[in-house]
Amino acid sequence: MDAGGKRAQELGQPSNIAVVDAGGHLVAHARMDGAWLGSVDISINKAFTARAFDISTADLAEHAAPGQQFYGISGSNQGRVMIFAGGLPLHRNGQVVGAVGVSGGSGDQDQSVAQVAAAGL
Amino acid sequence: MDAGGKRAQELGQPSNIAVVDAGGHLVAHARMDGAWLGSVDISINKAFTARAFDISTADLAEHAAPGQQFYGISGSNQGRVMIFAGGLPLHRNGQVVGAVGVSGGSGDQDQSVAQVAAAGL
Amino acid sequence: MDAGGKRAQELGQPSNIAVVDAGGHLVAHARMDGAWLGSVDISINKAFTARAFDISTADLAEHAAPGQQFYGISGSNQGRVMIFAGGLPLHRNGQVVGAVGVSGGSGDQDQSVAQVAAAGL
Amino acid sequence: MDAGGKRAQELGQPSNIAVVDAGGHLVAHARMDGAWLGSVDISINKAFTARAFDISTADLAEHAAPGQQFYGISGSNQGRVMIFAGGLPLHRNGQVVGAVGVSGGSGDQDQSVAQVAAAGL
Repeated sequence: MDAGGKRAQELGQPSNIAVVDAGGHLVAHARMDGAWLGSVDISINKAFTARAFDISTADLAEHAAPGQQFYGISGSNQGRVMIFAGGLPLHRNGQVVGAVGVSGGSGDQDQSVAQVAAAGL
Repeated sequence: MDAGGKRAQELGQPSNIAVVDAGGHLVAHARMDGAWLGSVDISINKAFTARAFDISTADLAEHAAPGQQFYGISGSNQGRVMIFAGGLPLHRNGQVVGAVGVSGGSGDQDQSVAQVAAAGL
Repeated sequence: MDAGGKRAQELGQPSNIAVVDAGGHLVAHARMDGAWLGSVDISINKAFTARAFDISTADLAEHAAPGQQFYGISGSNQGRVMIFAGGLPLHRNGQVVGAVGVSGGSGDQDQSVAQVAAAGL
Repeated sequence: MDAGGKRAQELGQPSNIAVVDAGGHLVAHARMDGAWLGSVDISINKAFTARAFDISTADLAEHAAPGQQFYGISGSNQGRVMIFAGGLPLHRNGQVVGAVGVSGGSGDQDQSVAQVAAAGL
């Protein structure tokens, strides 16, 4: 998470960073000074989503677009399914062992912070 | 809020006007005679949204459209994210200190009332 | 939070520790290895409650007991009000600036971990 | 689950039986002919609860009674915490690996069916 925080600082974009375990349950969360309040929920639920379906939320976004096979999935799981970039599953030995979720900037920024955070975990 | 109310009367559109603090929590709300019941919730949550992401809900709407980077954000934060015009963050000395949300008319009307109310706050 | 974590280790009781800001929004959360999954939500919402009413959840519990003046308050705020020990408001210069919430052990253990964490914040 | 179903038949009480994994997520659920519709949710959430706090829901009930240390816990976790008999954690090699939840009869009946189901798992 420190690595992700540094990447967010490089980007000049205060972020929320969340990590969930293999059950999709929160392990740790940090909000940087000035990060959006509304991104607390989004970071946690991007991580949940990435583990819930073992897919990055950026990839899920494509399947969840109007006309696509999972359109409407964001209405499931009590509103916890996030369908835009920033959530990444964490793999170890070919298994998904958890996920990281980032929210605070543009989709590209969140994705970049998540990638750096995931590499550090 | 009085200024916003006068603007709504000029427009002939009874409105709900809500103000939240820096934590996104309601500070004040007023429903004019004849304003829609369903707009109580919307005005409060437009204000919440404008503070939660430090952006007007009209601008957020563009990012939240199908195919855009935040498509799906309206499913976050337990359904409190409003993605149509009428919510504006309130700035003081370069900081967001709260937000105003208006609901009761067309998007353009709500936006106009919100702008006048924000200027008066 | 580190101080709270060390206290939890002394007690032999893995815990969730959460910190919220003056708006009641999550700033940071950590779950120790082996802490209960169901305590993620509880730690966050104990902190929310302590800030929402500027009172420790242990004290609120007395007012919320059957027959007392706030009996039923736990049904408000979308189920976020926790009425058992482990949540403490954080004061600075006579102001409540946030809160800490701990969940993972008995009420006495949670309270003890919260006190140590609050002292360190 | 077959064993649990047989026990429920002996008791003459059609039941819902649910099994969750170590993450508290549903692995299997079966509703016997004539079992209450409202017990679907309860059986799943009894199992969730038993895993969320690594305790039987019958034992949790004692701690959650008015005046006890966890009074109010049933308001946490989005209403998923069940505080009456019928949920049992499943152990293997000293670890909680999941849980079973039963709903459909009296507390004693649910508990009995859960015990038989747990023994068979």
